[in-house]
Amino acid sequence: MTPATSLFYPVEADLQILADNLKQLVGNRHPILYAAAEHLFGAGGKRIRPAIVLLISRATMLDKDITPRHRRLAEITELIHTASLVHDDVIDESAMRRGVATVNSLFNNKVAVLAGDFFFAQASWYLANLDNLEVVKLLSEVIMDYAVGETQQALNHFHTSISIETYLKKSYYKSASIIANSSKATGVLSEVSPEIAEHLYNYGRHLGLAFQIVDDILDFTSSTDTLGKPAGSDLKSGNLTAPVLFALEEKPYLEVLIEREFNQQGDLEQAMALIHDSQGIQRARDLAAHHAKLAVEHITVLPPSESRQALINMADYVLSRLY
Amino acid sequence: MTPATSLFYPVEADLQILADNLKQLVGNRHPILYAAAEHLFGAGGKRIRPAIVLLISRATMLDKDITPRHRRLAEITELIHTASLVHDDVIDESAMRRGVATVNSLFNNKVAVLAGDFFFAQASWYLANLDNLEVVKLLSEVIMDYAVGETQQALNHFHTSISIETYLKKSYYKSASIIANSSKATGVLSEVSPEIAEHLYNYGRHLGLAFQIVDDILDFTSSTDTLGKPAGSDLKSGNLTAPVLFALEEKPYLEVLIEREFNQQGDLEQAMALIHDSQGIQRARDLAAHHAKLAVEHITVLPPSESRQALINMADYVLSRLY
Repeated sequence: MTPATSLFYPVEADLQILADNLKQLVGNRHPILYAAAEHLFGAGGKRIRPAIVLLISRATMLDKDITPRHRRLAEITELIHTASLVHDDVIDESAMRRGVATVNSLFNNKVAVLAGDFFFAQASWYLANLDNLEVVKLLSEVIMDYAVGETQQALNHFHTSISIETYLKKSYYKSASIIANSSKATGVLSEVSPEIAEHLYNYGRHLGLAFQIVDDILDFTSSTDTLGKPAGSDLKSGNLTAPVLFALEEKPYLEVLIEREFNQQGDLEQAMALIHDSQGIQRARDLAAHHAKLAVEHITVLPPSESRQALINMADYVLSRLY
Repeated sequence: MTPATSLFYPVEADLQILADNLKQLVGNRHPILYAAAEHLFGAGGKRIRPAIVLLISRATMLDKDITPRHRRLAEITELIHTASLVHDDVIDESAMRRGVATVNSLFNNKVAVLAGDFFFAQASWYLANLDNLEVVKLLSEVIMDYAVGETQQALNHFHTSISIETYLKKSYYKSASIIANSSKATGVLSEVSPEIAEHLYNYGRHLGLAFQIVDDILDFTSSTDTLGKPAGSDLKSGNLTAPVLFALEEKPYLEVLIEREFNQQGDLEQAMALIHDSQGIQRARDLAAHHAKLAVEHITVLPPSESRQALINMADYVLSRLY
C-alpha cells in the first residue's frame, strides 16, 4: 500500500467496489470511449476524492451501513474529476499525467474532448437520478466552479498582478470546490443537521486548498521523476502559484522575467533561483499548514470513529508530502 | 423577418427577452468567455429550440401567462445547444458555421473547450435551480445523448455498414433528443398530464429527426453559399447520412469509393454523381416527410391556439427548406 491508500483503510473494500463500478458505469456505448475509460480508471489514480466521500459516509452513518446512494455519489465525484482532467490535458496540451500518457496523446484531441463531455454528461445524469435536489445543486456548483477556475487559470497566464486572494479563489474553484461540495453532499445524504453539513463543507474546502497549495509547492521542490511531468512547468507556462506570488513581494526582478514570458535564454532558471532564494516556498508551506489545521477543526465536530481519524490523518498526509 | 423567425410570431417578444437574458446569464466571469458568448449569442442564430419551448409554453398555459421557469428552460435549452456546437467545431476542426467564424478559429481550441464546458456547466447549474427533479432528469438525458450521438458520429466515419436505424438513432441522440426532452420538460412545468407530456416528447422527437434528415439532404443539394460551409462536406468527412445510406443499396461502387476514403482523384465527385443518380435523396425526403407528419399528429392533441398552429407550421417549414 502507498502512503495515500493506507490512509483509506476503513474504506479499502468500498474503494474496490468503486473501481469495479466505475468501469461498468462508463459502459460500452463506444469501444474508443471504453478504451479511454479503461485507461483512465485502470491507471491506479489515488482516488482521494471518492475516498473522502466514502470516509465521510462511514463517519456519518456510524450505526448503519452506507447506502448505494453514498457509493453513487463517490462514483459521480470521481467521474467529474476525471472529466476535468481529460479536458485540462487538452487545454494544456499535456502528453503525460503522473507518468501515464494522457487521452489526447494516446488517442487525439477529438477523442479527449468527446470523452470529457461524455463523463461530465454521465455525471449529470447519475446525479439527477440520485433524486435529491440539494445534492444535484451542490454537484452542479462543482461543475460550474471547475469551468470558472479552469478559465481563470488558463486565461490569466503571466499576469504578475494577481493577488494571493485571487489565487486562492481560483484554487477553490478548480480544486477545493469538488471536495467541499461533495463532502457536504455526503452529509446531506446521511441526513446530518445543516450545521454539520456546513462543517463538512468547510473541512473539504480547507483540505482542498491545502492540497492545491502543496501541489503548487511540489512543482518547485520535486524532481521531474517524482512529479511525472517536468519540474517548474507551472511557472514556465505562466501559471503563477503561491510560491511565486509570495516571492514577487521580495524580488521585483522576478516580475520582469515573468512579464517577458521567459523569452530570453536563462530567464526561467534565473526565476527559479530567485524563488528558491526567497521566503516564497516557506510562506506557501505555512499557508498550506494553516488550511490543513482549519480542516481538522471542522471535521472534529463528528463523533470519534476510525473513519473520522482517517479524515484527520488526510490533513497531516497532505503536509507530509512536502518533506 | 426570415421565414424561420416569422413562424415564431406568437413568441417574438419572448425571444427578444431570451436574447437579452442569455447574455446576462453568461455574465462576466471572464472577458474572453464573455466575448465568446457575445459572438455566439449575438450571431443571430435561428433560436429554433428555445422558440419551440416558448411556443409549447404558450400552447400549454393558454389562460395564464408563461412563468419565469418556462423562460429559464428555453434559455437552458439554448445554452446546451450552443455548448454542443462549440465542442462540435473543435472536434470537426471547423472554421465557419452558418457563415460565421467558429470560437476555435476566432480564438483557439483552448478557449473553445473551456467555453463549451462553461456553457454546459451553467446549463446544469440553472437546471438544478429550476427545482424540479423530473425536468433535471429530462435535460440531463439531453446532455448525455448529445455526447453519445457526437461520439457515434465522430468515431464511425466511413463505416458503410451502418444501417438507416443506426443513423436514425445517432440523429436522435445528436439532434432530436434536445427537442424531444425539452418539449416534454415544458409540459412538465405547465403541469400537463403524463399522456400529453408523452405526446410533446414525440412531437419533439419526430420534428427533430425531420430537421436532421433535411439538414443532411441540404448538404447534397444546396450551394456552398447557402450552407455557409462547403457542400458535400459530410460525405467528404465520412459522415454517412440518409441520402448516402439509401444510395448504397442501389450503387455498390459507392461503397468502394467510401471505403477507400476518397483517396483517389475524382472519387468524391464520382460518389456525389452516384448519389444524385440514385433514389437516395428522394427516399431521404420521404423519410423526413414521414417524421414531420408524425410530429403534427402528436402536437394536435393540444387545444387549438396561435402557438399550436405555429408548432404545426414548423413541421411544414422543415420540409419547405428542401424546395
